[in-house]
Amino acid sequence: MADPRFFAAPTPMTLSELAATAEADIQGAAPVEQTFVDVMPLQEAGARHVSFLDNPLYISEFSKSAAGACLVHPDLVDKAPNGMALLVTRDPYRAYARVAQAFYPRTQATGRISIDTVIDPSAVLGEGVQIDAGAVIGARVEIGANSRISPNAVVADGCKIGADCQLGPGVSLSHCIIGDRVIVHAGVAIGQDGFGFAPGAESHMKVPQLGRVIVEDDVEIGANACIDRGSGPDTIIGAGSKIDNLVQIGHNVQIGCGCLIASQTGISGSTRFGNLVMAGGQSGFAGHLVIGDGVKIAGQAGVIGNIEPGVTVAGMPARPLREFFKEVAFVKRLMKKKAE
Amino acid sequence: MADPRFFAAPTPMTLSELAATAEADIQGAAPVEQTFVDVMPLQEAGARHVSFLDNPLYISEFSKSAAGACLVHPDLVDKAPNGMALLVTRDPYRAYARVAQAFYPRTQATGRISIDTVIDPSAVLGEGVQIDAGAVIGARVEIGANSRISPNAVVADGCKIGADCQLGPGVSLSHCIIGDRVIVHAGVAIGQDGFGFAPGAESHMKVPQLGRVIVEDDVEIGANACIDRGSGPDTIIGAGSKIDNLVQIGHNVQIGCGCLIASQTGISGSTRFGNLVMAGGQSGFAGHLVIGDGVKIAGQAGVIGNIEPGVTVAGMPARPLREFFKEVAFVKRLMKKKAE
Amino acid sequence: MADPRFFAAPTPMTLSELAATAEADIQGAAPVEQTFVDVMPLQEAGARHVSFLDNPLYISEFSKSAAGACLVHPDLVDKAPNGMALLVTRDPYRAYARVAQAFYPRTQATGRISIDTVIDPSAVLGEGVQIDAGAVIGARVEIGANSRISPNAVVADGCKIGADCQLGPGVSLSHCIIGDRVIVHAGVAIGQDGFGFAPGAESHMKVPQLGRVIVEDDVEIGANACIDRGSGPDTIIGAGSKIDNLVQIGHNVQIGCGCLIASQTGISGSTRFGNLVMAGGQSGFAGHLVIGDGVKIAGQAGVIGNIEPGVTVAGMPARPLREFFKEVAFVKRLMKKKAE
Repeated sequence: MADPRFFAAPTPMTLSELAATAEADIQGAAPVEQTFVDVMPLQEAGARHVSFLDNPLYISEFSKSAAGACLVHPDLVDKAPNGMALLVTRDPYRAYARVAQAFYPRTQATGRISIDTVIDPSAVLGEGVQIDAGAVIGARVEIGANSRISPNAVVADGCKIGADCQLGPGVSLSHCIIGDRVIVHAGVAIGQDGFGFAPGAESHMKVPQLGRVIVEDDVEIGANACIDRGSGPDTIIGAGSKIDNLVQIGHNVQIGCGCLIASQTGISGSTRFGNLVMAGGQSGFAGHLVIGDGVKIAGQAGVIGNIEPGVTVAGMPARPLREFFKEVAFVKRLMKKKAE
Repeated sequence: MADPRFFAAPTPMTLSELAATAEADIQGAAPVEQTFVDVMPLQEAGARHVSFLDNPLYISEFSKSAAGACLVHPDLVDKAPNGMALLVTRDPYRAYARVAQAFYPRTQATGRISIDTVIDPSAVLGEGVQIDAGAVIGARVEIGANSRISPNAVVADGCKIGADCQLGPGVSLSHCIIGDRVIVHAGVAIGQDGFGFAPGAESHMKVPQLGRVIVEDDVEIGANACIDRGSGPDTIIGAGSKIDNLVQIGHNVQIGCGCLIASQTGISGSTRFGNLVMAGGQSGFAGHLVIGDGVKIAGQAGVIGNIEPGVTVAGMPARPLREFFKEVAFVKRLMKKKAE
Repeated sequence: MADPRFFAAPTPMTLSELAATAEADIQGAAPVEQTFVDVMPLQEAGARHVSFLDNPLYISEFSKSAAGACLVHPDLVDKAPNGMALLVTRDPYRAYARVAQAFYPRTQATGRISIDTVIDPSAVLGEGVQIDAGAVIGARVEIGANSRISPNAVVADGCKIGADCQLGPGVSLSHCIIGDRVIVHAGVAIGQDGFGFAPGAESHMKVPQLGRVIVEDDVEIGANACIDRGSGPDTIIGAGSKIDNLVQIGHNVQIGCGCLIASQTGISGSTRFGNLVMAGGQSGFAGHLVIGDGVKIAGQAGVIGNIEPGVTVAGMPARPLREFFKEVAFVKRLMKKKAE
């Protein structure tokens, strides 16, 4: 069970409730009224736990598991041990996510406004908004219903935050419009003016950054990530995209919908991502590029040209992943041969 | 026009005021008393907007633009559409920066000290200093006139900040001396003791870091960047240098004047940059290196040796940029040939 | 001498006190009761300063130094100038660290709780704990004796912090258990839920992260670093490990004891480090890897497979360091030859 210091004890669920939650079909012996108390990995689960089999590497753990119930793909049902109740679904990992969310629901906003905050009188707070100690809310800020602002977060004048959002401790927002159900983790900086200078031999002149940051619905932004506001156009993070810790997003960047951008990735100014792009950790993107829908970028890849939809790239300069790894192997082989 | 949620409406300027501001010469039909209300990109600009042509790629947009006035290089004047007032200058982008700054002047310090701050009685604040809610100012801190300390910024004992500076929300300063007109964005950490250990098989022993961080005039430091204090010598950021978000600067590093260091670059201890060095995003520098004046480092380059002034490098290990890209192309060609 | 704005003046020590502190043997002419007032580099030291010779590159500075005393390896004693008191030790750098710590002891917690904090009544604070202005301490938090919480740090419900710890300004802790003598620098984010999603074409579903972060004794964590909590298992940082600024540590990562992880390194989920691993700056690790004891990873290396104990790697993909540099040289040579 998750440490009770940090997690409320889960409410037990019956097998039929689990099946409904998981959007899975019950198969096997267990009575639908049997209750389960928690999720647990295959090796640790007991009779009253629900587990899941997602990665075929773990089939033997599955076959030996004492879990009372398990989420499993139809193709693997025949590997189940006797007596295990099966919750059959084509996507066991998403089903697990649903069940775990049901056992451990996200903390809701309490509707409590700490007296230790500084909130401009012109700010408009929706119903149920929670604002924790030390938060500072500027003039004309709007915060949607049931959003939660953590301690010491700072929301500058004019920002708009949707409903059911969560800002972590120490977050800094300015010049931005945030959609609904957006999660912004601790220390994130959104909306500062970006790296915009007219360079010169004597001095670099600051170019006013006159755009905003638009964060659409259901976006999540990892701790200490940075998103600069646009220089004139806006910087845009498309709906449902997930941005990991310490990512840098430059001015005027447009991220499509459903993108997954892993930690420490850096995206230079005015580059545009299509939808469902997946960027590996520490990948880097030059400015003014167009990255097509569904592109996958390996970790540490250095992208300096446009990428057509659906392509997977690696290396610096980034090239098709297979090509990159073949080149690496080729050089190794050639060197060995010359050495003989 | 920039979103009025975030930007004050610009004050109109006459063509002659614009020319004076831009340090440009008026050419074309418009009367010098005609007023203009805003800056705008070529494609969107109308009769009362000022635009600019910097990149020759956009000549056709320029020729079709409805902008009432445009900043343009003398060589491109003949591409202008009829009726456009021309503001002719050899550096249209810097001229644009000046005009945009005039329409959208930086927010000035209000001189207001929030009652929700904690300021040590021994701190010395210049005239017009603004200190926002939640800021914590330590003993013997000095802050120059008209500087602005944003919410929840922390300035530790003894730090000295010049005039007309701006510290973003949640900034942490210690052991540092900051010049005039320095901008430090949200979440920046300056002056903590760096990664200084006497390593050992049983334990790594902390080596006291007895230096400071000196940030000279007109420096800008991006969000969530980190600058460690020196171990004995100081860490120094030269005048007019611009450091982007999430950059790491180790102890004893010396950055010259007018350097541009893009996001997520990391500079290890005791490395010294000359003046006007440009480091691309995610570039990395080993410790104790000497990087000459005017060196340019491509994004993601890994620099492990000294670089002579004026050289441009790329790759890991970093080597002259042309050489790096020729090697990449050479391997690709060779592999293809062998495959035939 | 270190700038008195930031450092208290050191208390003089006699030569015999220095020898005891340094765990070194006195050799040479100086009387054991002679006092020394400070540490100083070889070139700047005078008669009342203690210096050290660690790197053989500096033997000539040593031979010319006016330092009254110097920490030196037995093999180099004969290079000393006349009249210098020698403190002979097999590890002069660690000896220097001890002496510098004695001259400049770490600031101790004052035991003062600022009235400008928000501390939940259920929190349990040990003796001598210092909590600075703006800090927010959640329900059931435990903080061990003599720990120091800097301004605007946030410790969420249930966290446990050991004795003699130091949290920097703006730190955010949640879902974590911290050992004794742990130093967490400004802006660090520990315990937020990591990048855990069940991806899908329509939406990425959040997978509850039910583990914690365990930080063992004597760990140091650099500014703006991020450590995500485990997804079910815990994320663990082993005793005595030192993590530099802006490092990213994903969920379920296990770091062994005494590791040194340089700035901007990123470690993906579920990767396990043995003991005494040294990771260079900007190195990256794919998920689910096993990195053996004593492995050394060069800066910017991209590790995508397991590494046996004791191996040193470089490059992307990471391979034995010698092999990587030989390949680089080989390609350069081959290209030159073909060009002839």
